[in-house]
Amino acid sequence: MKITVAQLNYHIGNFDGNRDLICSAIRKAKSEGSELIVFSELCVPGYPPLDLLDRLDFIEKCNRTVEEISNECKGIVAIVGSPTVNKNPQGKKLFNSALVLSEGRIIFSANKALLPTYDIFDEYRYFEPGKSFSIFPFKGLKLAVTICEDLWDEQSFDNEFEKKRLYTLSPMEELVKYDPDIIINISASPFSYSKIDSKADIFKAKAAKYDIPVINVNQTGANSELIFDGASMIVSSKGEIIRRLPFFEESVETISSEEISDAVISEGKGSPDHIELIYKALVTGIRDYFAKTNFKSAILGLSGGIDSSLCLCLAAEALGNTNVRALLMPSRYSSEHSVKDAVALAENLGIHYDIINIEKPFRAFEEDLEPLFKGRRPDVTEENIQARIRAVLLMAVSNKSGSILLNTSNKSEAAVGYGTLYGDMAGGLAVLGDVYKTDIYRLADYVNRDREIIPLNTIRKPPSAELRPDQIDTDSLPEYKILDSILYQYIELQKPAERISGEGIDAAAIEKVIRMINSNEYKRYQAPPILRISSKSFGPGRRMPLVAKY
Amino acid sequence: MKITVAQLNYHIGNFDGNRDLICSAIRKAKSEGSELIVFSELCVPGYPPLDLLDRLDFIEKCNRTVEEISNECKGIVAIVGSPTVNKNPQGKKLFNSALVLSEGRIIFSANKALLPTYDIFDEYRYFEPGKSFSIFPFKGLKLAVTICEDLWDEQSFDNEFEKKRLYTLSPMEELVKYDPDIIINISASPFSYSKIDSKADIFKAKAAKYDIPVINVNQTGANSELIFDGASMIVSSKGEIIRRLPFFEESVETISSEEISDAVISEGKGSPDHIELIYKALVTGIRDYFAKTNFKSAILGLSGGIDSSLCLCLAAEALGNTNVRALLMPSRYSSEHSVKDAVALAENLGIHYDIINIEKPFRAFEEDLEPLFKGRRPDVTEENIQARIRAVLLMAVSNKSGSILLNTSNKSEAAVGYGTLYGDMAGGLAVLGDVYKTDIYRLADYVNRDREIIPLNTIRKPPSAELRPDQIDTDSLPEYKILDSILYQYIELQKPAERISGEGIDAAAIEKVIRMINSNEYKRYQAPPILRISSKSFGPGRRMPLVAKY
Repeated sequence: MKITVAQLNYHIGNFDGNRDLICSAIRKAKSEGSELIVFSELCVPGYPPLDLLDRLDFIEKCNRTVEEISNECKGIVAIVGSPTVNKNPQGKKLFNSALVLSEGRIIFSANKALLPTYDIFDEYRYFEPGKSFSIFPFKGLKLAVTICEDLWDEQSFDNEFEKKRLYTLSPMEELVKYDPDIIINISASPFSYSKIDSKADIFKAKAAKYDIPVINVNQTGANSELIFDGASMIVSSKGEIIRRLPFFEESVETISSEEISDAVISEGKGSPDHIELIYKALVTGIRDYFAKTNFKSAILGLSGGIDSSLCLCLAAEALGNTNVRALLMPSRYSSEHSVKDAVALAENLGIHYDIINIEKPFRAFEEDLEPLFKGRRPDVTEENIQARIRAVLLMAVSNKSGSILLNTSNKSEAAVGYGTLYGDMAGGLAVLGDVYKTDIYRLADYVNRDREIIPLNTIRKPPSAELRPDQIDTDSLPEYKILDSILYQYIELQKPAERISGEGIDAAAIEKVIRMINSNEYKRYQAPPILRISSKSFGPGRRMPLVAKY
Repeated sequence: MKITVAQLNYHIGNFDGNRDLICSAIRKAKSEGSELIVFSELCVPGYPPLDLLDRLDFIEKCNRTVEEISNECKGIVAIVGSPTVNKNPQGKKLFNSALVLSEGRIIFSANKALLPTYDIFDEYRYFEPGKSFSIFPFKGLKLAVTICEDLWDEQSFDNEFEKKRLYTLSPMEELVKYDPDIIINISASPFSYSKIDSKADIFKAKAAKYDIPVINVNQTGANSELIFDGASMIVSSKGEIIRRLPFFEESVETISSEEISDAVISEGKGSPDHIELIYKALVTGIRDYFAKTNFKSAILGLSGGIDSSLCLCLAAEALGNTNVRALLMPSRYSSEHSVKDAVALAENLGIHYDIINIEKPFRAFEEDLEPLFKGRRPDVTEENIQARIRAVLLMAVSNKSGSILLNTSNKSEAAVGYGTLYGDMAGGLAVLGDVYKTDIYRLADYVNRDREIIPLNTIRKPPSAELRPDQIDTDSLPEYKILDSILYQYIELQKPAERISGEGIDAAAIEKVIRMINSNEYKRYQAPPILRISSKSFGPGRRMPLVAKY
């Protein structure tokens, strides 16, 4: 029997678009003689639909689309993901379902039993957990149909609680009673650079534990801040990866069930380098944010520093260099090399740029505020005014030209509040907001892997906001290597202060950094959506009380 | 037996502060001869602690604080709310517990069984549901100890799904098997003006259904955007309210069990007027946001319009008129009465104000952008520049003076995106972001109930952003009465377009308004925290995908 894995890029709420994508993959699979095609979790509405699931009209559209897709399933069976109404009078209103479609009908369904409700996931907000388990019998094979987290009951955790298992139930322990031949797992599993191998390990371990092959189908592409890597995989009953679909690309591949059972593995290369994957993830994130919100062009403020330089390269790759423009906005404190480096980069990439010196509005504000501030010394107020003038100029060009302002702040700055609200924190999408400064450098090197695109001077000079004379970042922050190590342990690993350690890290630095993180929740609350590449990004996956004394 | 209800204002993560509050109420109860004192849900860490619950160090501090409180419980028993570690190797790491403390020990505990995971609530993100039920025997009485939602299994819903019950379990059906004498319900139930009566009805119905009195203890005060009304209530076994503690005030009240069982009800007045309660809620919200973040003073932009005028009155009431300052920032498009009305209000309230005309920076920006915009006609770009100049000025004064900028946007504007990001959408706290424009007028009338504080001209003139000549809101929006009705049905009641109806509402208006709501998610994503007074506020309780095509 031939089975097709359809790894596609869905758009939330775009029912016609998703249906067309799905139906076209069904036709391709049929033309290849496939008998079963498997799509990813909640592919019908697009993932994650969030509170659109609270709208009955949205669910009715899901149902209608499922019906349309089922009419395409002539001579082929398809497994799609869609919400379905829980008809029991008690419990949450919906199930997160895998629906098996054939000849215009739903012939089997399975409801997700383990509902991730942590980090960016809120599935128990919408769904009742599935509580019954059965097997889909198909052409002499017994298929165990599972949905994403259903196979993740043995996952490990990034925190200090010594918890063995997050769930009190194991769907596979139930399903294995029916002696299945293949485990199907439809998923919508976002990319995280630190989880590439552990994700594969989940499927390998399940396959080996039960001696049953696993077919995992993930989506690709980005929706808002979440980026999906695809990388769907077929794992042999020995727990070896037989085939892995590409990262960050749509792909529809057909494989025979014989190939799955008789697999001879020439254990190939491991996962690609994580910097290369982060690069691809960010390009995907930019591209899809624009495509799915119907925007074509971007603008950003180019300072000559490494963050905005890297961001410009990513935007140019995602949108095309003619769809990106840069604004250079030097001030009385800008160094000469800043403009020079920025111009060099823009020219390397063939990007249109304009230069506006911010002195004129800066002086206007100084004069207007003089009566109120008389006698007060310049402080962070004046630094912020400069950053906010730049935001006014960028947003003006964005408004006038119908382009989206890209925010270029990095995760290290965002963590310690080293940025100006409504200033350099402005933008429609924060491209680098989940990338630590030390990884910014690695990504810049990756951009320059063949030739010098980002000027070496940009990479080598000490980072500076250039908001007062001779300012450099390390005036107020620890070295980025130390800072990032503390941040990673505190944010991603959720370690308490006394368990944070590493070369060059002392108690004073830890305390200072943690204080900065906690006292800047209010700024991050108003930050733009951040493309997520880590296991713990600022944004909806990290919810902190603003008024906490902690 | 005497029982004390302690309705207090907790601060998230402020363990010493919460302990002191709790211990001082215990001493007061003892001095009144009380044998049992009941506090509210999660009072030890403060509610809602959100992702601080993911930190083991935070949980350890909860445990230590519970121990300290238990040492105060000599000759008196206290019921407090705190997270406790789930020692079962499977399941979520914590329980949301009610702990009964006596003589330095925890002598009984109950774990919350129904975990609200909708709107602003994310409890299944952190907690394993309690699954066993027992009674706390105390001085010959059997107490059924429940936690908030545990009594809400029969609540109704604001949506179109015809769901009878959200949960598959009813804790009281389990507990009633033990024949309890009193139902204790510790809660942390935020204020919503449309739920005042239905909240009371929940307790009245439960009491009457089981013929058992209910003692409900809620917290008061605000944490970030959530405002808790207190209004703890004691309900007789006949389902009548015997006593209701004040709205939005701390209160420690002792009642005898005889008074509860022999209650003669002189069914007093119903709930206070909802406009008065909204007023008090907003004052509470401002006051606590400042107190709990250690700020004293506020600044806002006073336009002479009704929103900023009302906001100024609320801020003056919450913080004291000497802690609030106003900035009047007329432009070439401001009408003469704007400044006059604004000055009149500031003087009525005794508020310090400054006037800065924004012409100078506006011209500087126009000149700087001229080469880029040459030949393009003025449009919304230039309107936004004016709004953003005002934000730069306000934030400059905020930075220099260490005060928080209050945002004065209302919910109707926020819904349809009638506001400028980084302009009038700026601020540390959105005071009116959950108040529809039609309620803004009612609140203004409430402020003026005894004398004209807000100038009548401010209330009577047609609302205008004054960003271009002769602009009024109804140029681009329906009448507010119609707009607000559509918004309420779409946002609060989650009705699909075809079921929205009412006087003066037609299909074209509905379609236009819904399109505006959906296409402005990106703006609201970056809005300040909004004081929540409704059943569905913008912010963490409403999670919409930014890229959705819907």
